[in-house]
Amino acid sequence: MIDANFINPFLSATLNVLKIQANIIAEPGKLLRKNPGESLRGDVSGVVGITSNTFNGSVAISFPEATFLKVISGMLGEEVHELTPDIIDGAGEITNMIFGQAKIVLNDRGHGIQMALPQVVTGKDHSLMALSKGPAVVVPFTGPAGEFTVEISLSE
Amino acid sequence: MIDANFINPFLSATLNVLKIQANIIAEPGKLLRKNPGESLRGDVSGVVGITSNTFNGSVAISFPEATFLKVISGMLGEEVHELTPDIIDGAGEITNMIFGQAKIVLNDRGHGIQMALPQVVTGKDHSLMALSKGPAVVVPFTGPAGEFTVEISLSE
Repeated sequence: MIDANFINPFLSATLNVLKIQANIIAEPGKLLRKNPGESLRGDVSGVVGITSNTFNGSVAISFPEATFLKVISGMLGEEVHELTPDIIDGAGEITNMIFGQAKIVLNDRGHGIQMALPQVVTGKDHSLMALSKGPAVVVPFTGPAGEFTVEISLSE
Repeated sequence: MIDANFINPFLSATLNVLKIQANIIAEPGKLLRKNPGESLRGDVSGVVGITSNTFNGSVAISFPEATFLKVISGMLGEEVHELTPDIIDGAGEITNMIFGQAKIVLNDRGHGIQMALPQVVTGKDHSLMALSKGPAVVVPFTGPAGEFTVEISLSE
């Protein structure tokens, strides 16, 4: 299992970015261990690779379309009802902000993490599967805007 | 535009891995510059983040389902007609082999690239969009097994 001290900055950054950028309140649920071959499902996801001197990994946030539209509506201050390229770009910015904040906290503690370029995945009910034999956790979030999921997969 | 000396190892590794692992012959087409906000489409994709001291990036290979099934059939030496979790795992292995080989060549030339954990994306006609304001290229491949695409996006 991944150490809670490593996971918590990702959860705090998720809550923080959604609250400040989109005025969305969410609550993390129980951490679930993700087994190799299990996948994360969503309609809009942000994925970013991480590397360090001691491990590498991949982190992702996956939203159902309805939740994502509420997040973007909160960010823009107006109701958004469909996924357009500009709006999909917003998923990349959210991903960048969340995982960038988490990286700062972890690197202050000496982890020396580097972040690759984020990729935004869109497609109704797509699935993401990290190729890792190492530990992985999935954290489901709930709230008035709906559900979404954060995943952290590490090489060791 | 990304330097051809940086791109070519990815193309050679793609041809090499598909030939050796799956007995699939493919041919790279004309390099296309990818503009910010443009996306890569496919049914099965392998995505991996890269980092170095001077830039970071994301590389991806995207297959239509029909092409991917032919690649996997070639790897297994038997006809495969549908996407199962085991087969999807094969996309991760192909991604790892291709980008791992390219990394070795580039690092022999001093690039000092680290590779994050690959993610496999599945979902009919999903799209991938790298969040970069830097250069990005898309290389379409063709061959008897069908078309597929390799993308390289860098931060600078």
